[in-house]
Amino acid sequence: MLNVTFLGTSGAVPSAYRAMPAIALKYDKLFLWDCGEGCQREMMRNGVGYGGVEAVFITHLHLDHVMGVFGLIETVRMNTERKKITIFAPRGFERMLAGISPTMGWEPSFLDIREMKEGELYKGKDYTISGFHVKHQKRDAFGLVFQEDDKNKFHEAKAKKLGLKGRMFKEIQEKGKVKVGNKTVKLEDVSWVRKGMKVVYSGDSIYDEGIASIAKDADLLIHDSTFGDDLKEEAEMRGHSTAKEAATIAKKAKVKQLVLTHIGARYRGPELEAEAKKVFKKSVCAKDGMKVELKPEKGETKK
Amino acid sequence: MLNVTFLGTSGAVPSAYRAMPAIALKYDKLFLWDCGEGCQREMMRNGVGYGGVEAVFITHLHLDHVMGVFGLIETVRMNTERKKITIFAPRGFERMLAGISPTMGWEPSFLDIREMKEGELYKGKDYTISGFHVKHQKRDAFGLVFQEDDKNKFHEAKAKKLGLKGRMFKEIQEKGKVKVGNKTVKLEDVSWVRKGMKVVYSGDSIYDEGIASIAKDADLLIHDSTFGDDLKEEAEMRGHSTAKEAATIAKKAKVKQLVLTHIGARYRGPELEAEAKKVFKKSVCAKDGMKVELKPEKGETKK
Repeated sequence: MLNVTFLGTSGAVPSAYRAMPAIALKYDKLFLWDCGEGCQREMMRNGVGYGGVEAVFITHLHLDHVMGVFGLIETVRMNTERKKITIFAPRGFERMLAGISPTMGWEPSFLDIREMKEGELYKGKDYTISGFHVKHQKRDAFGLVFQEDDKNKFHEAKAKKLGLKGRMFKEIQEKGKVKVGNKTVKLEDVSWVRKGMKVVYSGDSIYDEGIASIAKDADLLIHDSTFGDDLKEEAEMRGHSTAKEAATIAKKAKVKQLVLTHIGARYRGPELEAEAKKVFKKSVCAKDGMKVELKPEKGETKK
Repeated sequence: MLNVTFLGTSGAVPSAYRAMPAIALKYDKLFLWDCGEGCQREMMRNGVGYGGVEAVFITHLHLDHVMGVFGLIETVRMNTERKKITIFAPRGFERMLAGISPTMGWEPSFLDIREMKEGELYKGKDYTISGFHVKHQKRDAFGLVFQEDDKNKFHEAKAKKLGLKGRMFKEIQEKGKVKVGNKTVKLEDVSWVRKGMKVVYSGDSIYDEGIASIAKDADLLIHDSTFGDDLKEEAEMRGHSTAKEAATIAKKAKVKQLVLTHIGARYRGPELEAEAKKVFKKSVCAKDGMKVELKPEKGETKK
């Protein structure tokens, strides 16, 4: 199961209703995608344990996406047994850290800083977290993908009927086939592929059809929706998307659901959700504290 | 009138109930004393306009006291007509800023950074804000004083009886005396001194009787109260005070009221307030959003 908690859903400037951008992903471990100012308190409020954060991924260095990480570092350092904290961030983050670290007396060994880049960033037991470039002003800016591995699942009845038992299950998985008596049984004859869960986050981005390719068939697309259709030009100029544009990407990518986030301070949410729904029905505007629970498929998807 | 709003009242680590340290003072202008993470949102929630901040005073560079200022700078820069923002902070702040400023593209001219020091920092029309050294670990750490000027107020009836009129009021104020016919009237015979309002903030400090001298007769003392009496040794070791110690300072200084702040995460508040009240009755434990309104004396204080 994969739990996604929207800790902060505002765009650029905080509002009384929305905290700065941050998303918590809980699979076997806890990850943060962006870590805006106030993130720690939002983690507390939403029952997301901050001490156990495995890694923080900063999509770009605008302050609204990064300013919460320094306080988080200090809290983890003071209050947990953790030996280090891993942070993926674009170039420039080390300079920020160099400004703050000496004042706090942080041991360099406590800080495991990795450069945010395109491609695989983190490999878990049966999933990966990867980055991809997005277009956001002249920034070194990224989006993120959580991709669970596809898994072979057996049609138990069919396998048994063809005589598979004991170690044969292991062998057929390893070799793709197995001998049963004088017959050869192929893996595809007795199994189906359970598609791994996929979550894609645009970070801050203009409308970019490249994101639709990356988000193809995703279980969840989380997309920049700083503006409404009334300010389409401003969205592009400022390197952001409108709700309708986010929905267009969701539709092209045929995702299962779309969550709009990075909501500009002039909007309340429902009006953006309505604009998105006209293009893509399964659209929801994020609220602070909103949780989305993703479960793997239970049976074979008929195609 | 002087309004003091407690925007954040936690110690070191935030809690779900208390934001990071920050106090807003509104006199003719708006000042911030410390600016912990999340300060902007607390200003919004409490109706304290952040765009109009005249100056921010950072007592020391522990992250809980400073981390909100960078987001505030960016918001003021983006959303107001302000040409600069003034920040008083101890040495080391410029290094922090150097880490963040290039990433944000802040013009150096927008940032008016002054070194926090002992003595007068800011001079207003009829008040000053000054710093004083406090003992907090090995930090370059400060407390702050808001001091309104004393003012001469006339006993109108008495002055008239002695024949004062028109320009004589101006002359007696300037020279300390004035001739009325063949008599000399001295200023002290027809006036009284209205003591200026005084607010003292300890910042983070161990129990230090020096603060009692500085806070002498203050209208309001805001004092570190990170621990209860149960952890007196820990308070000293960590450079903080207990509620009882804060009350002892208040009593020695004969202040009009004491507000306990920088409340450690293990405490709820009322238990610290109770400990303080045993020593000094007019003690209150701060809550986020609490406001204290100070008014100048209306008439002569009989002594």
